[in-house]
Amino acid sequence: MTQVFNFSAGPAVLPKEVLQQAAAEMLDWHGSGMSVMEMSHRGPEFISIYKQAESDLRELLAVPANYKILFMQGGGLGMNAVIPLNLLGRVREPATPGPAVIDFVHTGSWSGKSLKEAARYANVNVAASSQAEGFTHVPPEDAWKLTEGAAYLHVCTNETIDGVEYNFVPRVSDGVPLVADMSSHILSRQIDVSKYGVIFAGAQKNIGPAGLTLVIVREDLLEHALPICPSAFHWKNVAEHESMFNTPPTYGIYIAGLVFAHLKALGGVAAMEQRNIEKARLLYAALDQDDFYSNRVDVSCRSRMNIPFYLRDESLNEKFLAGAKARGLLQLKGHKSVGGMRASIYNAMPIEGVQALVDYLNEFAGR
Amino acid sequence: MTQVFNFSAGPAVLPKEVLQQAAAEMLDWHGSGMSVMEMSHRGPEFISIYKQAESDLRELLAVPANYKILFMQGGGLGMNAVIPLNLLGRVREPATPGPAVIDFVHTGSWSGKSLKEAARYANVNVAASSQAEGFTHVPPEDAWKLTEGAAYLHVCTNETIDGVEYNFVPRVSDGVPLVADMSSHILSRQIDVSKYGVIFAGAQKNIGPAGLTLVIVREDLLEHALPICPSAFHWKNVAEHESMFNTPPTYGIYIAGLVFAHLKALGGVAAMEQRNIEKARLLYAALDQDDFYSNRVDVSCRSRMNIPFYLRDESLNEKFLAGAKARGLLQLKGHKSVGGMRASIYNAMPIEGVQALVDYLNEFAGR
Repeated sequence: MTQVFNFSAGPAVLPKEVLQQAAAEMLDWHGSGMSVMEMSHRGPEFISIYKQAESDLRELLAVPANYKILFMQGGGLGMNAVIPLNLLGRVREPATPGPAVIDFVHTGSWSGKSLKEAARYANVNVAASSQAEGFTHVPPEDAWKLTEGAAYLHVCTNETIDGVEYNFVPRVSDGVPLVADMSSHILSRQIDVSKYGVIFAGAQKNIGPAGLTLVIVREDLLEHALPICPSAFHWKNVAEHESMFNTPPTYGIYIAGLVFAHLKALGGVAAMEQRNIEKARLLYAALDQDDFYSNRVDVSCRSRMNIPFYLRDESLNEKFLAGAKARGLLQLKGHKSVGGMRASIYNAMPIEGVQALVDYLNEFAGR
Repeated sequence: MTQVFNFSAGPAVLPKEVLQQAAAEMLDWHGSGMSVMEMSHRGPEFISIYKQAESDLRELLAVPANYKILFMQGGGLGMNAVIPLNLLGRVREPATPGPAVIDFVHTGSWSGKSLKEAARYANVNVAASSQAEGFTHVPPEDAWKLTEGAAYLHVCTNETIDGVEYNFVPRVSDGVPLVADMSSHILSRQIDVSKYGVIFAGAQKNIGPAGLTLVIVREDLLEHALPICPSAFHWKNVAEHESMFNTPPTYGIYIAGLVFAHLKALGGVAAMEQRNIEKARLLYAALDQDDFYSNRVDVSCRSRMNIPFYLRDESLNEKFLAGAKARGLLQLKGHKSVGGMRASIYNAMPIEGVQALVDYLNEFAGR
């Protein structure tokens, strides 16, 4: 096998141990004679897989008992519609006149997509934006212009494309739910779930395969769907049927469960956070050493997961990527909307991979 | 490994050769050093997997050039909302006054779920129903009361729970699109795609893993979404981005592609249809031999894929299931809504599996 390190932003690298176990069990899960892919979602075998995954995730993130964990479909883009469809029926306190308003903080490409989609269903208030500065920071919280009686506040706590990560939990007024898109950093750092109304994440970064979408929702927020919300995406339905109102993406849940067990064996989220701090420190140090490379994000908001960078001389981009590929350092090209390079170093990226990239950065810079 | 035959209605049995290949390629697809699960959906490796799957499916079903094939998420229940959200913006010809009407033929549990969901978005006309007779047949087409200028006609051409299958293509008025839920018999028999406006199918029966949903849609029907249609489920968006508007369920597409290649190697859909006719003949003959067992569906509408049956003496049900399980004949319990037994014998069920079930049916009946 070729030894590679895969810096894709998602779908992304998975723990080798997880893939090995999945391969070994592909034709016969635990003596059942069936692949997990072949199991009825209502049979005892799959139910046991689902329950273990749910319980391990609950433990890893210390999810309080009054929150439901939903294993859904539709991805982040789907959720951008599914969230307003589930929350806009909420009676707002204090009761405010006029149509519902959703507050957004616009910190990059993903919060931008979310607010554009939400505008189909309600008025959108951009409470703060760093667009004018090229999405290089989270606007200071004191300057946010929040709406009294907003339906909810939506933030993207790690912008995958722009490499901007929140290092604080936003404050909200009493009764305004905080909704967080944690797609690209969930399970990479400790969080206090109780501060959020809804947390959602596409699986294809730190959880498992694309096609699985995780939603963690406080129980009182299950009751407020609009009548136009499709029943398969109505959180209350999904919660009441333990994510089996619709046939769930069973194989994705199985792989996610293997990832959760693997994380637990490594010491859980606290241990992953320490590793991620160290990996990010190593990589940013190499980028900051001189001006051959640059990362434009404010130091206080730099993502530990997605690290975009530029070569001072962008005419060398192709040469840089070709040399990286020759060394097995894959998928370093930046998102087409921002250009440059990007290294995504999720939980499953070993420190050896980051070190290999750092060595190549130094070599290419002639250090 | 335990030798079993898995009669689950879905997720269901997959070809052993496909699972073997998936296991062998799990850690390193074609020397890339990556699992398919780890590949960016925008990279050349996954694009090649996607394009081959699309092209093989197009060939297998002889999909005309003016139809798009979409690889989506959301399952059959999701599509029950996504279809009206995509079609109800259509200007109806002849222009009819009043709100849009969707015609349905109610032949069992799945068409029932579809019409209930569609009623969120339009008026529903049940053009014909076999509910009063216990869903044992497709109502004769001449008695269908279709609406002039309907937005579309929705049929479920194989009812998974009730075991009722269409043996004809419904007639529609000029300009009324025919929408068919083929979840549980797609790729099991030859079809004339050009007769349909939309064909959809959850993957978890004859295609691949749960979480992938196939939509085959005539191009002129891409233009009629309602403003409230989530952009991730707007067929036009999905078509224009070759199923990558949202990150698609990449691993599911990969497995589906392996299944498509496998079907081609076996001689395509025509060859599968002959095998399926033979398998169904064998099983119905055993059920019909005397009154120890019964299948209540009219002979002309019996499904080749999903075969519900009852024991004359239902007090023997548990004993029957226990004996079946002891012989490796799994998941034969009928759907909870109808009771009894059900054998799903999809493409991937070998004739040896059907023969093993027939042998057990005869043995249990004391023949």
